[in-house]
Amino acid sequence: MRLSDIAKQFDLELVGEDKEIHSLAALQDAKPDQLSFLENKKYLNALKKTQAGAVIVKKELLSLLPKGVSALISEEPYLTLAYISKLFAKEPMSKSGKEPQIGNNCTIAQNVSIGFNSVIGDNVTLMPGVVVGENVTIGDNTLVYPNVTIYRDCQIGKNCIIHAGTVIGSDGYGFAHTKDGRHVKIYQNGNVIIEDDVEIGANCAIDRAVFGSTIIKRGTKIDNLIQIGHNCIVGENVLMAGQSGLSGSTIVGKNVTIGGQAATAGHLTIGDYAVIAARGGVTKSIPGGKVYSGFPLMEHKQWLKLQALLARLLKRGNC
Amino acid sequence: MRLSDIAKQFDLELVGEDKEIHSLAALQDAKPDQLSFLENKKYLNALKKTQAGAVIVKKELLSLLPKGVSALISEEPYLTLAYISKLFAKEPMSKSGKEPQIGNNCTIAQNVSIGFNSVIGDNVTLMPGVVVGENVTIGDNTLVYPNVTIYRDCQIGKNCIIHAGTVIGSDGYGFAHTKDGRHVKIYQNGNVIIEDDVEIGANCAIDRAVFGSTIIKRGTKIDNLIQIGHNCIVGENVLMAGQSGLSGSTIVGKNVTIGGQAATAGHLTIGDYAVIAARGGVTKSIPGGKVYSGFPLMEHKQWLKLQALLARLLKRGNC
Amino acid sequence: MRLSDIAKQFDLELVGEDKEIHSLAALQDAKPDQLSFLENKKYLNALKKTQAGAVIVKKELLSLLPKGVSALISEEPYLTLAYISKLFAKEPMSKSGKEPQIGNNCTIAQNVSIGFNSVIGDNVTLMPGVVVGENVTIGDNTLVYPNVTIYRDCQIGKNCIIHAGTVIGSDGYGFAHTKDGRHVKIYQNGNVIIEDDVEIGANCAIDRAVFGSTIIKRGTKIDNLIQIGHNCIVGENVLMAGQSGLSGSTIVGKNVTIGGQAATAGHLTIGDYAVIAARGGVTKSIPGGKVYSGFPLMEHKQWLKLQALLARLLKRGNC
Repeated sequence: MRLSDIAKQFDLELVGEDKEIHSLAALQDAKPDQLSFLENKKYLNALKKTQAGAVIVKKELLSLLPKGVSALISEEPYLTLAYISKLFAKEPMSKSGKEPQIGNNCTIAQNVSIGFNSVIGDNVTLMPGVVVGENVTIGDNTLVYPNVTIYRDCQIGKNCIIHAGTVIGSDGYGFAHTKDGRHVKIYQNGNVIIEDDVEIGANCAIDRAVFGSTIIKRGTKIDNLIQIGHNCIVGENVLMAGQSGLSGSTIVGKNVTIGGQAATAGHLTIGDYAVIAARGGVTKSIPGGKVYSGFPLMEHKQWLKLQALLARLLKRGNC
Repeated sequence: MRLSDIAKQFDLELVGEDKEIHSLAALQDAKPDQLSFLENKKYLNALKKTQAGAVIVKKELLSLLPKGVSALISEEPYLTLAYISKLFAKEPMSKSGKEPQIGNNCTIAQNVSIGFNSVIGDNVTLMPGVVVGENVTIGDNTLVYPNVTIYRDCQIGKNCIIHAGTVIGSDGYGFAHTKDGRHVKIYQNGNVIIEDDVEIGANCAIDRAVFGSTIIKRGTKIDNLIQIGHNCIVGENVLMAGQSGLSGSTIVGKNVTIGGQAATAGHLTIGDYAVIAARGGVTKSIPGGKVYSGFPLMEHKQWLKLQALLARLLKRGNC
Repeated sequence: MRLSDIAKQFDLELVGEDKEIHSLAALQDAKPDQLSFLENKKYLNALKKTQAGAVIVKKELLSLLPKGVSALISEEPYLTLAYISKLFAKEPMSKSGKEPQIGNNCTIAQNVSIGFNSVIGDNVTLMPGVVVGENVTIGDNTLVYPNVTIYRDCQIGKNCIIHAGTVIGSDGYGFAHTKDGRHVKIYQNGNVIIEDDVEIGANCAIDRAVFGSTIIKRGTKIDNLIQIGHNCIVGENVLMAGQSGLSGSTIVGKNVTIGGQAATAGHLTIGDYAVIAARGGVTKSIPGGKVYSGFPLMEHKQWLKLQALLARLLKRGNC
């Protein structure tokens, strides 16, 4: 799509060379055929170094754009991005495409749907009611229990087990807001990548990335009713217990343990081998190798001490 | 159904005129062809003004009934209501009915079921495994992802997006209790109404009303794994983040934001533009326009102050 | 399977008589044709009294085995159990078997799958997209809403209602851990038993037992989005509100009430008629007949007192 066409459609000023744009990306990842945006000034450095073909920016920031990067001028770049994102959204279901390719020795039950251009490895089992969207890959020996939904473009590794009712690749929760209080969808054009040897419990929801990929790395085991927001990266051999959740863009190190009903605030990092006890609420990045509890989160031994203090307070009945 | 037949079936005394009853309703909503009940004395005023055809009440309250309103006498009106509710429950699946009506330019995938008497608008996409119960309406341009279930009698607006695995119209959690500790189902004869431009994430559960409607108003965006109890009314442009929940009969004002894993106790009102932070637990009605946190809920700045005090207490190691 | 074959396959020392082993079981339940294990020394008494055919144990504990009980020697018995458990896992879907038996007057909708050897009672309704695995029994008059998945070997009683999207019999979250931080699946070879008159809400996940059964007893009513871990035993007439969860091996007494988003830590007992308020976090066994709140859990009246103290502290702004 030509930048000039986008500019025209949304009545935006185009500064710089007209270009062919193929997709959207974050500033630090964008390539010359991609369009990016800057809303939050904490990403000014990424703006100065971006390799995007064009960026949606406020007029006052034009001078910071690297040479050769075009601009679409907007006073509300995030909202403008939201409107533009729809242009790059893929159809949920195409009308035509290449028949899916099924490996050797697979068990494909009745009432299974597999979308165009998908590739299923060897020895894969897809139980009744499984829906595999188009352009999905599923690795060898993976077992998918009934009524699982895998959205288009997602990649599932080898030797994975996905329990019934789980949803992989649903849209991340991303909206820009108008001044009059409406919420405009940012189409979620990324995907989910599940690496090898991952097990995911029943009725989980793992959202696709807005751009790029939500990633669950090799050997991670996820219990039931767990939410993983868009653009999370979950390290190798992580354990997540039932009803826990990761808000968008949480980065979880390897061998982290996350207790039941624990959650994260998103846009933060959890270091390798950290343990978050049940109900822990992670509100900022934390180093690995320690045990944490509580909300707001603290080291577990501090939390125990606090509970002991409160128990004493309660016993005395007075402060 | 005749009041006298109901009275006979459950061995109840009928006081006043025998009438034809078509359905059940709350005191304040009931019409002359409806049966209502009074269990909790805080609704005595509603009893005095009811336009119900008949009311299930304790004998001692008979004198408060408006003229012309009949009564079924019960020492346990709520329990009696539960038993009677079964008489008015509709079949989950009828054996016959009018073929569903599908609009122009729809994409109805394989393995989709649509019940009798349902009406699907134009440009609607129903992906594989979607189950639309009978007497459902779905508005133009709405997109329903795989394995979604919409129970009978529900109404979905235009331009909605419903993600995979979500359930709309499941029974509210309503039971009356016998003296020996059994729980008797109150059949949930209402429905769910989703207005236009609503997006609902994956694996949510939105319960139908016991009588009347659970309503999600225009422009509201709901994340994954969210529960909305029976008879909730969620205002326009509300945001609900992942794993949050509304207990039954919660009234949420417009443009309210509800954080991840936050919840409400039910039978309360949240004012317009209120913000409930993640994990907030709303236990009573709150005015709009403020930010709240914690459980029990308080204003967010109070919560921050409390956390600072506790941190100081912990540091000192003594109260 | 011969003990000697298992020993050979995993390079383990077999002490005592070679035997035919049919399945795995916990020490206190194991029979002479079953293999058990001891990892945690708090079960030494169970070891001394076990009737298992053989036990996986550390060498140093050999002398504690009852006469005639064989041993497989391992320095990591739980990890060894995990590897062995795969040998006893049943196929998720068999290639052949006895056609399912359907009772009189059932309504089996389109797109329903029923596995081999399953037995469906009279007057059962299975709505579209329901998947019943093999060797399942469903009692008379039970109603299963769309897109429910019931895994193999589970038993559902009479007069039950199971709402859409719920999963019964998914694998419990059980892993043994290698020294280098990988997680080895313990195949969950047990099942789920749902007794009569149970209602389960939408999008719940009830895990099968590792050995034996997860049991939901008669008359219990479960709301939406609830997790019940492996080997839980939920008593009669229990109420569990939305988004609550039970970790593995929780024993819940009869007529217990569990509030919304409440949870348990597992391997504990809740006494009859206990009430856990919303968000309560049960971390150890508690006697019945009382009302509890908070996390860590305390008696509700204590929790109210603590909140009052904290409110006073906050008001004073100083400790």
